Amino acid sequence: MSHSVESIAVLGLGLIGGSLARALRQNGFARRVVGYGRRQRSLQIGMELGVIDSFTLDLDEVLDQCDMVVIGAPTLVAAELVKSIFTKLPGRVTAPVITDVASVKGNLKVAALESMSTFPPNLVLAHPIAGSEKSGVEASSADLFLNHRVILTPEESNSVEAVELVCAMWRSVGAEVVKMSVAEHDKVLAATSHLPHMLAYALVDALASAEANEDIFRFAAGGFRDFTRIASSDPVMWRDIAIANQTALLQSIDMFAAHLADLRTAVADANGDQLHATFERAKAARDQFAIDMAGRNQRKRG
Amino acid sequence: MSHSVESIAVLGLGLIGGSLARALRQNGFARRVVGYGRRQRSLQIGMELGVIDSFTLDLDEVLDQCDMVVIGAPTLVAAELVKSIFTKLPGRVTAPVITDVASVKGNLKVAALESMSTFPPNLVLAHPIAGSEKSGVEASSADLFLNHRVILTPEESNSVEAVELVCAMWRSVGAEVVKMSVAEHDKVLAATSHLPHMLAYALVDALASAEANEDIFRFAAGGFRDFTRIASSDPVMWRDIAIANQTALLQSIDMFAAHLADLRTAVADANGDQLHATFERAKAARDQFAIDMAGRNQRKRG
Repeated sequence: MSHSVESIAVLGLGLIGGSLARALRQNGFARRVVGYGRRQRSLQIGMELGVIDSFTLDLDEVLDQCDMVVIGAPTLVAAELVKSIFTKLPGRVTAPVITDVASVKGNLKVAALESMSTFPPNLVLAHPIAGSEKSGVEASSADLFLNHRVILTPEESNSVEAVELVCAMWRSVGAEVVKMSVAEHDKVLAATSHLPHMLAYALVDALASAEANEDIFRFAAGGFRDFTRIASSDPVMWRDIAIANQTALLQSIDMFAAHLADLRTAVADANGDQLHATFERAKAARDQFAIDMAGRNQRKRG
Repeated sequence: MSHSVESIAVLGLGLIGGSLARALRQNGFARRVVGYGRRQRSLQIGMELGVIDSFTLDLDEVLDQCDMVVIGAPTLVAAELVKSIFTKLPGRVTAPVITDVASVKGNLKVAALESMSTFPPNLVLAHPIAGSEKSGVEASSADLFLNHRVILTPEESNSVEAVELVCAMWRSVGAEVVKMSVAEHDKVLAATSHLPHMLAYALVDALASAEANEDIFRFAAGGFRDFTRIASSDPVMWRDIAIANQTALLQSIDMFAAHLADLRTAVADANGDQLHATFERAKAARDQFAIDMAGRNQRKRG
């Protein structure tokens, strides 16, 4: 089964939105790729770079003219856009098909339910597990999603056609589509992404505010550099994610804090057996993860 | 002032000991580099690879024949070697000059003071801040220490000549020598190295032991891979470091746990200002660290 659309709009041309626009324009999934945003600058850069065919600053125009709309904005802006869109689309709940790329799904579901009495059939929430330390449309790349996973969190009220179209869009750019519930998505991402960011931020802030912090950073080496790389992430984006995924993130922090407390006890008791068992289990899991991930990257290059 | 010695022994030919042996043999700091260990295998490989000139399994022979001895073994084995050496060297406290490369200094100081009434004049504790994910003599490299820092923790009772000789040895392999107290070293390393390892091990173990852990690792991406890389480190080595540096590590864990608890409160209160301020401070410190470290690596390549 082959899908394509006449026109698709990408709302917000950052790294993710820009990369998706590039890929969809190149592979012909959409005959026309339209950029939308509140600021003209990245849209004009997007035109110059050939990422989009045209752009508009008018959301009504987007909703009138496009078959499909991808909300490319980050967490809290995406929620505002969901509200704006469904305030404008009270009766039209089958077209256009709306989807997104944000890191948290629960707050978008809440935003949709605040605008509509039931979850809109044409809103299919999604999250591509891809990114880069770079940001902005200048860093966008048509193969960003190749062999990456995209999590769809379809709702019971979603139309089968809308879910199929969003699946087809992601498959067209080389991604592997996986489905799970909104709650499951937010729990998994809290554990593997949002919690590690909190730990890295907390560690660097703790060391930077310690006495003699100059000395401390002077003697940090490669392991510390890798461990803290994610503490260089965008503070606004991560503030918004932390707030949007509050419930699952608090559960993850508490689970981690309990494990750290156990480890602290083992250190305090000089319990070599417990320390060794913990480190062995962690190393085995991390080594297996590295093998699996290397396999995924191999497929990406191959 | 140029230093060199007739013969130097390296006790334990791992990555660090092997790399140092290679470098000292190549640069002529020692006319003869002798390997010592409890197992013949890595010593024979060291001979085949040209890392050492000869080897022995007899510690008495090492102490009788060498001008300088580098304990290349990890934390707890290094402490055992300090005890063995100073049990064998009761009267001879000026030669040979003994030094080490282990990650913790406090336990070696304690080991020395258990063997001798005062800290031996000829024992100069040291720690090169260099390493690699690789291990073993096969991975050794003569330029491992080039432009890396080496922390010396001289004691008041150390002879000036012994400290100078150890400084000269490290400078001969391109390292930058920095001096601090044993307590300061163990505190700084707890913060920048030992604590991050505990956090990475605790996180991976927590996720691996959670329900549905398969799903969790399936959706982890590049940020998680970098953040958890150090959880693939050797469990025995890190068990020993955690126990040897117990006091400073517990303080670091407590400092971190307090910062994490503050961050948890900010998430629970949806306190965007506090989250943003914390992330901004951390990002600024991490970005500065990355710039400084890139500068160091530039010098290394240049």
